[in-house]
Amino acid sequence: MRVLILGGDGFCGWPASLHLSAGGHDVAIVDNFARRRADVELEAESLTPIRPLGERLAAWRELSGREIAFHRLDVAQDYPELLELLVELRPEAIVHFAEQRAAPYSMKSSRHKRYTVNNNINATHNVLAAIVESGIDAHVVHLGTMGVYGYGGAGVKIPEGYLRVRMEADDGWVERDILFPPSPGSVYHMTKTQDQLMFAFYNKNDGVRVTDLHQGIVWGTQTAQTRLDERLINRFDYDGDYGTVLNRFLMQAAIGHPLTVHGTGGQTRAFIHLEDSVRCVQLAVEHPPERGERVRIFNQMTETHRLIDLAKLVSQMTGARIELLPNPRNEASGNDLHVENRQLLELGLQPITLEDDLLREVTEIAERYAHRCDRDKIPARSLWVRPVPDHDVPAPPHDAERPAGRLVAADDSPPRRARVTASTP
Amino acid sequence: MRVLILGGDGFCGWPASLHLSAGGHDVAIVDNFARRRADVELEAESLTPIRPLGERLAAWRELSGREIAFHRLDVAQDYPELLELLVELRPEAIVHFAEQRAAPYSMKSSRHKRYTVNNNINATHNVLAAIVESGIDAHVVHLGTMGVYGYGGAGVKIPEGYLRVRMEADDGWVERDILFPPSPGSVYHMTKTQDQLMFAFYNKNDGVRVTDLHQGIVWGTQTAQTRLDERLINRFDYDGDYGTVLNRFLMQAAIGHPLTVHGTGGQTRAFIHLEDSVRCVQLAVEHPPERGERVRIFNQMTETHRLIDLAKLVSQMTGARIELLPNPRNEASGNDLHVENRQLLELGLQPITLEDDLLREVTEIAERYAHRCDRDKIPARSLWVRPVPDHDVPAPPHDAERPAGRLVAADDSPPRRARVTASTP
Repeated sequence: MRVLILGGDGFCGWPASLHLSAGGHDVAIVDNFARRRADVELEAESLTPIRPLGERLAAWRELSGREIAFHRLDVAQDYPELLELLVELRPEAIVHFAEQRAAPYSMKSSRHKRYTVNNNINATHNVLAAIVESGIDAHVVHLGTMGVYGYGGAGVKIPEGYLRVRMEADDGWVERDILFPPSPGSVYHMTKTQDQLMFAFYNKNDGVRVTDLHQGIVWGTQTAQTRLDERLINRFDYDGDYGTVLNRFLMQAAIGHPLTVHGTGGQTRAFIHLEDSVRCVQLAVEHPPERGERVRIFNQMTETHRLIDLAKLVSQMTGARIELLPNPRNEASGNDLHVENRQLLELGLQPITLEDDLLREVTEIAERYAHRCDRDKIPARSLWVRPVPDHDVPAPPHDAERPAGRLVAADDSPPRRARVTASTP
Repeated sequence: MRVLILGGDGFCGWPASLHLSAGGHDVAIVDNFARRRADVELEAESLTPIRPLGERLAAWRELSGREIAFHRLDVAQDYPELLELLVELRPEAIVHFAEQRAAPYSMKSSRHKRYTVNNNINATHNVLAAIVESGIDAHVVHLGTMGVYGYGGAGVKIPEGYLRVRMEADDGWVERDILFPPSPGSVYHMTKTQDQLMFAFYNKNDGVRVTDLHQGIVWGTQTAQTRLDERLINRFDYDGDYGTVLNRFLMQAAIGHPLTVHGTGGQTRAFIHLEDSVRCVQLAVEHPPERGERVRIFNQMTETHRLIDLAKLVSQMTGARIELLPNPRNEASGNDLHVENRQLLELGLQPITLEDDLLREVTEIAERYAHRCDRDKIPARSLWVRPVPDHDVPAPPHDAERPAGRLVAADDSPPRRARVTASTP
C-alpha cells in the first residue's frame, strides 16, 4: 500500500515508518523537523543518540534493501506543496503524526499555546482540505490521545470514541451515539478534541475516511526495526516537557535521582508499548473503514496504572526512592479509569505488558545511555494555571508565566504567584 | 463599562458598537477590514452605501458627542499588538465578532476553507491567550451560531448550550450536562464548534468568563442608531455568499427576480432582528457570569420559520413569484426546530417579529437602494460537496471546485461533476 507518513521523523513517526516499510508498504515521509528544533529551543536532547534523517534512511536502505522517500515540508504551512505531493503520490493511507504532541510544552507560555493551536489545527485541516481538493480517496490514520476523554469518568467506562446516551425528546427518551463529551486537560489535548470535529465534518460532508487512534502514554523506546542498528535508534525524551512519566522515572533511577511523583500519584493513566503502538498503526492502515462509514475510533492502549504504582515498580527494579512533589497541573488528585479497547485486540493486537519488558528498557536505554543525561532537564517546568493579578499577592521572586517569546523557568514547586483559579469538575 | 469590540466594522459589530456607545459604555473598536476586503474579492458590494469607518466614527461623534476609539489590527495574526491593547485598555468586556461568518464563503474552495479555519480558530485562541497573559479579568462575549447544533433534532428540543443526558455507569445510569453534541453543516459552522471547546478549556483551566451567543439568522439592516444619519448606515448583503436568506428574498422581490428557494424550502431556521441582536449583546455585556461560573450559553433567536413560509410572506408583500432550485448544500430537505431561548427573554429582551417590521425593511432598504443592486450577484455559487473524480463522469463544462486562489463560478444549479458523496444523518 502507498502510505504517506506526516511527522515520520518523530518519536512515533519514525518507528511507524520503519515498521510499515518492513511490512511491505511503500512508505514516504513528510517532516519539517519541528521536534528536532524543539530540542534546540529547550536545550534538551534525546538521551539516545538519534541520527539525522538522511543517515537514518540510508541505514535502512542498506539494512533492508527498502527505500523510504522523504519530502521536507510543513504540513500546517505549506499547503500548495502538500496538495502537489498528494496529487503526485496518490497515497492510499496518510498517517498523520504532524502535531505538537507534548501537553507541558503546550502550556509553557502564550507563544507555546498559540504555536500548538496554530500548528495542530492547520495541519489537520490542511490534510483534509488537500484530500478533498486532490480528489484522492486516501484513508487518514490520525494519532489522537486518550486525553480527549479527560479523566473524570466517575464510573462511566470510556468507550471507543462514541458514547451511547439517552436524551429527552418530545415523545420520551431517545438513544443516540455521540462523540464522548471531551474534557481536555491542556491546550495540546484541546487541539485533539478540535481535530475530532474536523474529522467528523469532513467525513460527513465529503466522505473522507478516517481512523482516529486515541493513544495512551507510550513507553519503551525501541521496536524490532529500530533495534537493528544504532543508526536507526529512536528518541528517548526525559525532560519535563517531552519526557513521559515512565521515561522520567527510568532516567531518574539511572542517575540516582529520586522518582518525582506530582501530587499523590493517585492519577490513573493508560499505557501502551511503542512496539504495540506501531502495530496498531499498521492494523489501522491495513483495515480502512468502508466508504460511507463514520470516523472509526480506536483506543490505542493496553493497560492502566496509577502513577504511584509505576513509581513503585521502577523503585523495586532499581532501588530508587520516591519523592512526592506538588502537582503543576490543574487536575484531580486521583481517578479511576476504565477503558474499552476491544477493537484493536480483535484485529489481532497482542499486548506487551510493563511486566514483560520494562526491565529491558532499564538496561537497554536508561543505564546504557545514562552518561548522556543532562540532570538539569529532569524537573517539570511548565505550569498549568493562571497567574494571580498583582494586587492579590505580593510580587513573586519570579513569574509563573512570562511574556511570549521567553521560557518559563519555575522550579518543580509552583511559584507563590500561581494558584488554581478555576474549579475542577 | 470599558468594552472592546473585535470586528466592530462588520454587519453585527458596527450596530453593536453604536448601541453600546449610546448605552453609555466606553467603546473601542478593533477591525482589520476583512469584510470590506471580501467585497473586493467577490466584486459584491453592500446594497446600502456604507461609509469608511473613519467617516462613520466622525459622524457618530458629531451626532452623539461620544467618542469610539479605533485600533486597526488583525486579531488572528497580530498577537503582540492585541496583547498590548488589552494591557493598555484593560477592557471589562471583549465582544468577539472577529470571525469569517459566511457558511457559503467558507465552502467556496480549499483556500476559503483554510482561511476560515485559520482566521477563526486563531482569532478566538489569541483573545483567550491574551486575556490569560495580560492578567485582566475581561468577560468574553462571543458571537456563536445556532448552526453548532445542526438541524437534525428529531424531536429533541435544542437547549441553551448544555444538554442533560443519561449515560451508563458502573452502578446504573447517571445524568450529566454536556455541551450539545455538535453537528456543523459547513466549515464556518465547524469553527464555531471548535471555538466552544476553547472556551470550555480556558474557562475550566484559567477561569476566563465567557458568554457564547448562539445566534440565529439575522434579518433587518438598521438599528435606532444606524438610522440616525445615512453616514451611519449598516451593510446589507444580498450576494450568494454573505447575503442571508431573507435579504436575498427582499432583494429579488425589489428587482423583479423570482424568490429562489433551495431544495423544498422545508428547512426550518431560527431568526432574530438585528435590533434584537445588538440588545442581546448589550444584555450579555451587562450581565457577566460570576467568577468560577461555567461558560454561559444563550440562544440568540426569537422565532423559527420554514424557508418556504418566509418566501410566501415576502411574496405576499411584494407580489414576487417563488422558484424552487436544487440545493447546493449537503443538508436534510426538511426539519423541525424547537429551540429554548428563555435566558435572554428573562433578562428583558422584547422581540421584534418579522410580522412587525418586515415591511419597513422592504421599503426602507430593498426598494430604496434597489438601483445599486448587481443582479449577477443573486445566484448562490458555492457548493458544499466534493467533486467526483474525473474517471467517474465525463468532464464538466466548468469545475465544481477550482484550485485554491481562484473563485468558483458555477450556476445556481449544481454542475454535473458534483454529487453528494456522504450520507446525511
